[in-house]
Amino acid sequence: MNANANSLETLFIEPARRAPVGIVIGDANGIGPEVVAKSWGSGLLHQACRPILIGSAAAMEQTIAALGMDVRVRAIAHPDQARLDPEVMDIIDGGALDPAAITPGRDTAESGRAVGIWLGEADRLAREGALGATVMAPVSAVALEKAGMLDRIVSVTPGETYLVLFSGALRVTHLTDHMPLRDVSAMIDKDLITLTLRKMDAALKQWGIAAPRIAVAGFNPHAKGTEDTDEIAPGVAAAQRDGIDVTGPVSPDSVFRHCLEGRYDMVLAMYHDQGHIAIKTVGFSGNVAVFLGSPYPQVTIAHGTAYDIVGRGIADHSMVLNAILTAGSLAAGNAFPNFH
Amino acid sequence: MNANANSLETLFIEPARRAPVGIVIGDANGIGPEVVAKSWGSGLLHQACRPILIGSAAAMEQTIAALGMDVRVRAIAHPDQARLDPEVMDIIDGGALDPAAITPGRDTAESGRAVGIWLGEADRLAREGALGATVMAPVSAVALEKAGMLDRIVSVTPGETYLVLFSGALRVTHLTDHMPLRDVSAMIDKDLITLTLRKMDAALKQWGIAAPRIAVAGFNPHAKGTEDTDEIAPGVAAAQRDGIDVTGPVSPDSVFRHCLEGRYDMVLAMYHDQGHIAIKTVGFSGNVAVFLGSPYPQVTIAHGTAYDIVGRGIADHSMVLNAILTAGSLAAGNAFPNFH
Repeated sequence: MNANANSLETLFIEPARRAPVGIVIGDANGIGPEVVAKSWGSGLLHQACRPILIGSAAAMEQTIAALGMDVRVRAIAHPDQARLDPEVMDIIDGGALDPAAITPGRDTAESGRAVGIWLGEADRLAREGALGATVMAPVSAVALEKAGMLDRIVSVTPGETYLVLFSGALRVTHLTDHMPLRDVSAMIDKDLITLTLRKMDAALKQWGIAAPRIAVAGFNPHAKGTEDTDEIAPGVAAAQRDGIDVTGPVSPDSVFRHCLEGRYDMVLAMYHDQGHIAIKTVGFSGNVAVFLGSPYPQVTIAHGTAYDIVGRGIADHSMVLNAILTAGSLAAGNAFPNFH
Repeated sequence: MNANANSLETLFIEPARRAPVGIVIGDANGIGPEVVAKSWGSGLLHQACRPILIGSAAAMEQTIAALGMDVRVRAIAHPDQARLDPEVMDIIDGGALDPAAITPGRDTAESGRAVGIWLGEADRLAREGALGATVMAPVSAVALEKAGMLDRIVSVTPGETYLVLFSGALRVTHLTDHMPLRDVSAMIDKDLITLTLRKMDAALKQWGIAAPRIAVAGFNPHAKGTEDTDEIAPGVAAAQRDGIDVTGPVSPDSVFRHCLEGRYDMVLAMYHDQGHIAIKTVGFSGNVAVFLGSPYPQVTIAHGTAYDIVGRGIADHSMVLNAILTAGSLAAGNAFPNFH
């Protein structure tokens, strides 16, 4: 089911083009440090990017010891100081989390606050140009809320920031996110469609797809309805006049299959479940989420802190590994890892 | 992608339990006769059911000759007269279509009228008990409309007749069908949910699943919204009190994956694209549609008459073959072909 796996494992980017990727280790009380450490230990990260952790050095040291990994943790102050040696795990640790406050498997305000600070630091460094992309390992919304820092997680705002999910060749940008489905109709506006298509086209080009082919999912069955005719169609036509290679509205029950088969590079879905059902039904393990709309690729994953298995060494790191390799690939302008 | 294929090819039902399945050959001007003939020629039908065609004997004779098949067509008046010999294609032909009126690749009122009559005949025989199930090969809505007989195609009516699509282990009943998505919210009613779950449970038991496990998809992202809380949840609870094994509302972006993985036997989707996106994105070729709510299984397929390739001998018959084998399996109370 994971069409990415093969190409990710063989992802190799020339050393000179490897981008510095900031990896926020996630909530120190969850499986974040474990899945980040295992990804590091795969030996694959350094073939695709220059990985730099952001978080608690103590949490990483404890995790590495528990996993019996032969890696040394070294605190640095800035990505420029990173050694890029697979045996030395460089981490930017501003001291936001007291090592004594690490309480595996529990939501705490201390840990949430530290995550909020690390996310802010990663964003600042990326906007400065010191990082080419960022990856967020699993965080806890509860802990962030306890710390009053839930706003540090990227939020989706139609017209500004969009959630892109992908799994293999199926890549979906969502026009809207968490909203009642009955309210989506009123959000579908031709100017918003055109604006979104411009942003998608620009991001795809920046990420390394020279001539992006985009499809827009219709809203109603077989793309036959008021929203399809009055808003989506003219929004697509305006984007076409801008020179964007975009097709739509396409019947929602066909467009995702067409993308999987390679007819398009990305689909614009109208609502959360339209895209999420397609992605998650095809296969879960390879899913990676990228936020489109910020100046750099922000990559995250679909699973949480998995408190129930923290410290047991059994957490599956494949999603975080995919996320880091994807971040490296997009930041290097090397397109999606499985892009042909 | 076609999780059915293997099990369908090995589908074997004891001779005494093989049900008479009426196969309407579809529009004689389309690929219906060709895909029906090829299915017959596969040798698989007679291992699973007692196939009896309904349609134009002349159309079948022409098709068999064109394909060079070693099969003889014999007109019969009633399913009881069927010989059940793979080398003799028994067909009920009441003379609805003048052989001279067959005009391959064209929509005509004559052909549409004949299809309408054949569909009526199949339904009558099934309601009498002479047929255990019916299958409709590709028909043309345009031709039926020209004949004023579009109403002969089963239509979906919430609370009465439901469309069930399946592909491998993913099976979905749709609460609503072709309606504007913004109007679906108002259709979601707790009593309709309960009624539908009772019908699904009864049909699944009749089709051979002794203890059906059903899941209900939520309406909003993560099944968190007014419709989920106020209508779906109490509708599910009432069905549970009836002894039905049903779970929900489940997050729409997870429930179809769970079904594919075998946690449920069927999902109730709230709207057309919720189920269709899941089914069609996972894989198209094995899709079969069954109408739930009539006293016998009515099976149809997702493709049309393909006028552009009529008579070239290149039409893919796998969907009609799947449909016929599925009809035989359900009518025999042998569950879905790939059911474990």
